[in-house]
Amino acid sequence: MLEKINSPKDLKDLKIKEKNELAKDIRDYILEVVSQNGGHLASNLGVVELTIALHSVFNTPEDKIIWDVGHQSYVHKILTGRKHKMGNIRKFGGIAGFPKTKESQYDTFNTGHSSTSISAALGMARARDLKGKDNQVVAVIGDGSLTGGMAMEALNDAGFSKTNITVILNDNQMSISKNNGGLNNLLGHLRSKKLYTRTNNLVKRGLSKIPGIGPKMVTNIQRFKMSLKQLLLKGNGMYFEDIGFTYLGPVDGHNISKLESIMRLSKKIEGPVLIHVLTKKGKGYKIAEENPDKFHAIGPFNIETGEPKSKKGADYSKVFGDKLVKLAKKNDKIVAITASMKDGTGLKEFAKQFPTRFYDIGIAEQHALTMAAGMATEGMIPVVPIYSSFYQRGYDQVIHDIALQNLPVVMCVDRAGLVGADGETHQGMLDMAFFRLVPNLVIMAPKNFKELESMLEFAVNAKRPVVIRYPRGGEENLPELKEKNLKLEIGKAETLKNGTDITIIAIGKMVARALEIAKELEAKKKSVEVINARFLKPLDKTTISKSIKKTKFAVTIEDGTKINGLGTAVKELIVDDKIRGIKFKSYAYPDEFIPHGSVNELEDLYNMSTKKIASDILKECEVYKKNK
Amino acid sequence: MLEKINSPKDLKDLKIKEKNELAKDIRDYILEVVSQNGGHLASNLGVVELTIALHSVFNTPEDKIIWDVGHQSYVHKILTGRKHKMGNIRKFGGIAGFPKTKESQYDTFNTGHSSTSISAALGMARARDLKGKDNQVVAVIGDGSLTGGMAMEALNDAGFSKTNITVILNDNQMSISKNNGGLNNLLGHLRSKKLYTRTNNLVKRGLSKIPGIGPKMVTNIQRFKMSLKQLLLKGNGMYFEDIGFTYLGPVDGHNISKLESIMRLSKKIEGPVLIHVLTKKGKGYKIAEENPDKFHAIGPFNIETGEPKSKKGADYSKVFGDKLVKLAKKNDKIVAITASMKDGTGLKEFAKQFPTRFYDIGIAEQHALTMAAGMATEGMIPVVPIYSSFYQRGYDQVIHDIALQNLPVVMCVDRAGLVGADGETHQGMLDMAFFRLVPNLVIMAPKNFKELESMLEFAVNAKRPVVIRYPRGGEENLPELKEKNLKLEIGKAETLKNGTDITIIAIGKMVARALEIAKELEAKKKSVEVINARFLKPLDKTTISKSIKKTKFAVTIEDGTKINGLGTAVKELIVDDKIRGIKFKSYAYPDEFIPHGSVNELEDLYNMSTKKIASDILKECEVYKKNK
Repeated sequence: MLEKINSPKDLKDLKIKEKNELAKDIRDYILEVVSQNGGHLASNLGVVELTIALHSVFNTPEDKIIWDVGHQSYVHKILTGRKHKMGNIRKFGGIAGFPKTKESQYDTFNTGHSSTSISAALGMARARDLKGKDNQVVAVIGDGSLTGGMAMEALNDAGFSKTNITVILNDNQMSISKNNGGLNNLLGHLRSKKLYTRTNNLVKRGLSKIPGIGPKMVTNIQRFKMSLKQLLLKGNGMYFEDIGFTYLGPVDGHNISKLESIMRLSKKIEGPVLIHVLTKKGKGYKIAEENPDKFHAIGPFNIETGEPKSKKGADYSKVFGDKLVKLAKKNDKIVAITASMKDGTGLKEFAKQFPTRFYDIGIAEQHALTMAAGMATEGMIPVVPIYSSFYQRGYDQVIHDIALQNLPVVMCVDRAGLVGADGETHQGMLDMAFFRLVPNLVIMAPKNFKELESMLEFAVNAKRPVVIRYPRGGEENLPELKEKNLKLEIGKAETLKNGTDITIIAIGKMVARALEIAKELEAKKKSVEVINARFLKPLDKTTISKSIKKTKFAVTIEDGTKINGLGTAVKELIVDDKIRGIKFKSYAYPDEFIPHGSVNELEDLYNMSTKKIASDILKECEVYKKNK
Repeated sequence: MLEKINSPKDLKDLKIKEKNELAKDIRDYILEVVSQNGGHLASNLGVVELTIALHSVFNTPEDKIIWDVGHQSYVHKILTGRKHKMGNIRKFGGIAGFPKTKESQYDTFNTGHSSTSISAALGMARARDLKGKDNQVVAVIGDGSLTGGMAMEALNDAGFSKTNITVILNDNQMSISKNNGGLNNLLGHLRSKKLYTRTNNLVKRGLSKIPGIGPKMVTNIQRFKMSLKQLLLKGNGMYFEDIGFTYLGPVDGHNISKLESIMRLSKKIEGPVLIHVLTKKGKGYKIAEENPDKFHAIGPFNIETGEPKSKKGADYSKVFGDKLVKLAKKNDKIVAITASMKDGTGLKEFAKQFPTRFYDIGIAEQHALTMAAGMATEGMIPVVPIYSSFYQRGYDQVIHDIALQNLPVVMCVDRAGLVGADGETHQGMLDMAFFRLVPNLVIMAPKNFKELESMLEFAVNAKRPVVIRYPRGGEENLPELKEKNLKLEIGKAETLKNGTDITIIAIGKMVARALEIAKELEAKKKSVEVINARFLKPLDKTTISKSIKKTKFAVTIEDGTKINGLGTAVKELIVDDKIRGIKFKSYAYPDEFIPHGSVNELEDLYNMSTKKIASDILKECEVYKKNK
């Protein structure tokens, strides 16, 4: 069937049976692609029927579909003319793993971070109203994304607005226990405002059978989501009705016919509509159905066994988590807070060993950080690992609640710098820049695993707000990095190698790079001094200034934007300290959003590889010699 | 009575009658202080009884009270040993207008921005549980603050947590219409979980009389808040019960006896409790009761008439609003969005003239900005004025939703730079710094009203994201600034004065300052070149570089932090362009949080006044000459 579908128009004449075949083909195709490339699997397998129904009922691209987070847009991409490009999804030069307006007219809004879809949809709906048009606008949002505050802000506004907008709540059954006998009876029990009174009792009877928290609940966050969901379900979506939505559902998210009926009904209803759709993450691939978390985002794997093709090495997140467990054993003031990223940030073991000191508070970075501030005022030492680009979500809370009160919160910035395949919404290029301008913060980045351990130990004892940033994945483990002295002193850099011709100042993962570059330069008879900055703030001005004055040629290397990172800090130093007659160059990423691709490809593209930096430095040496 | 009260302990033995007298004394005192100093009036008059009851029932400072936003903390300050300091509130060196942990042990958490209190309280409660203590933690939050997403995030988490925490919903009656006959019957109708079943029917009957939206509703945002409130009220706080709170109330917020009863009851209840308190903004001062918005934050005024003592001059917000109306008349794509700051940001007239193109979406900066992005994808030109320090709340949305998609949203940063009396949480010192590092943004700041008009016109036609920052209050109107050519060209600075000894590069309100300084320097026989940067990004490197090379002594002056603003941008330019043999100095605010005081006092303190900068430049000239 898939062969016949080149655009949503090709869906219009298919029979339900053919659409079910198509669903099967799409599942097989996604499984094939993701098992080879890696990517988001479980969420995409869960929305196959939903996506087919959406593109069948709605008239895209005139009607607008906005995918919250957007990792569940593979089926949508396949149906909208990109099926032949799926082989290169998330690869350099290939299509992205998230919706991109530049990629297709069917992608109406770029997503990547959680909980934005209702706001964006409401904006589009209001624009439509002003233009006097009548197209539909549909936001598809998962139940997890609803825990984010901005989704609530948008729901309130949308409900009150009376604007025509459809919100599809993609409620994955993972967190609904299996013995929900009453639920199936209700599927397809559609109602509009008019039907409400008539079917009210029937519906209520049916819904009362929906059980509470099931016995199989595993994690706290699952219970938390369930609690939210109970609220939403209660009284047949009364919460949504109360804030001004017409509530339709719940409907079986894997029954195309029922999905289409309910969607067609929603188009007839004036004002905001919420369709409650029940789906199963990983649907159709048993191994993923049973381990939806594991198959949420995954590397290449064996379809038969579900096992990853390459064994995952140690990574910074795990090193962080293991060290935190050790520190927490010695210090009972240490607590850990995550915004729904327990596994991703390496907190699994901590949660197991210290369940009362571990808080998974939902996709709610703002609350996570101010909650941390509150705990810190009472003597706790909260450690809050959040991905770099998600720290943007809690920026005011870092400034206004943590830094301003100078509270001892340890902010661990995971996935800092290039992250690779997830692309521009997830690249952690900005954190050094946006944190450096905040008063009272100490900002560090480790050169390897061992230094992360030291920095974490330093941070939990610092009695002030500390930021530690570290990259996705593993360390570049050079023999030179096994130094003797790991003792950190605030604002002190580490000179790893002495030299007289060139100073290389690097930070974080780029320190290993700097040593490799030094080797290449030494082969060309240059004497290189390598400084591990360790602290972006406060910067070790003395060590750096002294070295620059000695070698008269300095470069900085960092895994972040060129504005307001290490390079800028050293430029400020050069001007402020009136260091004259020297040459300086900063190696960093340009002031633009960095697309997806492998880290190696991107480093090469942006001239940040060892080879390219080394050869550029050599070139600069020649120019410099000539000008002298 | 007020004379007898020096700490909350003195409240414990007072009779209700005496407390009522005390309430009267406090109202008179606040009225006296605010009419002289200016400050927040209506909200403080509204919480007199509530604050007395809190400090009577709870055992502060062991029990913790967190004031959301914190502008309603005057009564609290008076009762906690600071009554004699009220005369200097909000003044330089005096006590702050918001809670400050450094000021008193009774101030448990610094606030200033909205919607943080429940997160902070939950953090404190969880810390208490870990420490095995049993003190109470109370968050006091207004109904407006509940529209902020992070409050919802925190409510969900708190409700689910089962932790002992009390949230006091300070629901001001302003937005409840007057004919709510059913309401009074219910006041004091207290119930705990146990009482619930018994009184349920009674309570329900009573509540059903609470009317819907009253006939006197004026603004959209009032209706919006009302809609939220209806939800919260419905079924006697069923929403709160559903998310896990025990709901108590509603209770008359001006009846100390009833308030104390309900608070005492709340202390006995296990788990999270919400007390719904009905108060009247401006209570006891008729003129404020009738115009609570006008008396929310106000300058010195005449108590008899309510009229301001000094006539308010034109300010940037009004100039912005008036110009926007003119532009909107010619261009029907222009829409305006505010996060509950219609009056403060100068949008009153726009809202009146273009009600269908005006959106007040609550205290919800995140949603405001992504909604704007959504509208922009559909051809609208959204203009979003938000105060500088509140833009931090929507930082991810600026980066991830607006800048990344390069959408034509006009972000107007009001209250940029020093704001004065509101102090550290409101000073707009960071916006230039945190926006400069975001790809795709154009960043401008006008030197006077006229230039703001030009910049706004430029921005709505720019077809890309533009930031315009401008200060609180009026312009420094120099004759020199009436220049002929107001035409803006992207990335082009304006040379206001040619000279050969010193280059002064300034931006925004500091341009007028630069001209004053130039006058002083010229009196000392220096030839000064003055450049109005206009664009922080893209910076006019050509003009600036050329001038620096000519004068060989350049300074920058800006109303913001010294990290990553104009000074840093020019330092980068000096190093990148290899401009040698020159001297440079940047005048900006240090990397710290700036306290409250008048703008003049603070400028003087931080050596940013005309006199101080001029004399410092002269000193630098001498040093420079010597070294040469």
